[in-house]
Amino acid sequence: MKPASNEFDRLRVVLVAARNPLNIGAAARAMSNFGFPHLRVVNPYDAGFREARSAVGASALLASAEKCKTVAEAVADCTLVVGTTAVRHRELQHQLRRLEYGARLIRKQLGSGRVALLFGSEKFGLSNAALSHCHWLMRIPTCDGNISMNLGQAVAVCLYELIRDGKAARQTEKVKSATAAEYERITTTLLETMRTSGYLDRRPIADVEERMRRLVRRLNLPARDAVVWLGILRQILWKLRSEKRRGTGAAG
Amino acid sequence: MKPASNEFDRLRVVLVAARNPLNIGAAARAMSNFGFPHLRVVNPYDAGFREARSAVGASALLASAEKCKTVAEAVADCTLVVGTTAVRHRELQHQLRRLEYGARLIRKQLGSGRVALLFGSEKFGLSNAALSHCHWLMRIPTCDGNISMNLGQAVAVCLYELIRDGKAARQTEKVKSATAAEYERITTTLLETMRTSGYLDRRPIADVEERMRRLVRRLNLPARDAVVWLGILRQILWKLRSEKRRGTGAAG
Repeated sequence: MKPASNEFDRLRVVLVAARNPLNIGAAARAMSNFGFPHLRVVNPYDAGFREARSAVGASALLASAEKCKTVAEAVADCTLVVGTTAVRHRELQHQLRRLEYGARLIRKQLGSGRVALLFGSEKFGLSNAALSHCHWLMRIPTCDGNISMNLGQAVAVCLYELIRDGKAARQTEKVKSATAAEYERITTTLLETMRTSGYLDRRPIADVEERMRRLVRRLNLPARDAVVWLGILRQILWKLRSEKRRGTGAAG
Repeated sequence: MKPASNEFDRLRVVLVAARNPLNIGAAARAMSNFGFPHLRVVNPYDAGFREARSAVGASALLASAEKCKTVAEAVADCTLVVGTTAVRHRELQHQLRRLEYGARLIRKQLGSGRVALLFGSEKFGLSNAALSHCHWLMRIPTCDGNISMNLGQAVAVCLYELIRDGKAARQTEKVKSATAAEYERITTTLLETMRTSGYLDRRPIADVEERMRRLVRRLNLPARDAVVWLGILRQILWKLRSEKRRGTGAAG
């Protein structure tokens, strides 16, 4: 379930020793996309990270990012500290959870306290020293063939899982479907058009009304499309009839 | 549920008129991270996209990407064509689904046929002409304040949702917990240490055994940590006792 926005306010995204300021900007952009306002940057490689052009729509977020000297300082006010890692089979010093489950625990904790979510440097990930501040670790379920994600993409995926709404999963912003009456008007007009065009004289069809009704039903039309199709058919039918009349007139 | 890898083989990620080759490379990296091998690039702004340095671990995927001249060509062999969009409240020409639900429909379709997933240019998204090739549209549930995601991040988030395993959500790579016997050994040694250090003489505690047993149980220890704590306590106890003996000896 989607937490209320004050719960999102309790998350601290902590980038530790990030090398590329563009990745810090990209992380800020993803935070802004998903509604997490608080960024902390520990010991960044490039002091000019606040000007990162990649922080599209997130310059205010980046400007208000807190710069910390140590991981201890960056997590001090948090009741849960979670580290992200790509590594999985090494001698684990921590519990390692898949993102799907870890994010659920983080959301729960955000109901009552601050949570720090740590991301390490592009080259080396989180150091053992940084990891020692974590309660547990979380990994994005990447393929064994290429486990290491880009920093900005990893932040985006983790935050998406945090805002993901499983209950909204079935919601579709629906297009209104055509009614049975609209289908029937199309069927009738189609049949009349087929007759007028001579189609049925050349290819007689048994039970033609039922067959055509089923054929039209299978189109599964949105209401507004039904109107368009009916208009097209009516115009064709009108033209066929008027040509026929003209033909008859000319012949008469 | 995670589809088999031959189902992932049926997805075609289609980048239409992407401007920045670094974003094409980032998309390729995310595809490699999540196990989707087939990229199609329609009318890219920069012909040199195959050399994008951002495709870390995905250079083979990028090298085998198919370059297409039109969207029609890029989706021709697909039975389902889905466009991605950030826009939501405009006059919709298509059904618009949230990623959580749309991805489920895509996974279902991948069981039997190829699916094209289209991403538009960084500046303008998918054009109306490109959108007209789509069966329906999908949106990542971003905040109203900043709906537009970076292209590489959007690809990563969509592919993550496709590989996301809701059923694996409860799996934790568990650390073995300490047994009751290990807790009891720690409790006993702690009590002995408290007695020997004189703590209990200075601060007598009623029901001290039960209280300390509960205090230790609340530590919720992994098995390997129990061993470490017991070792530390035993060393402290040994030192306390030997100092006491030395003290007694010296005094004697």
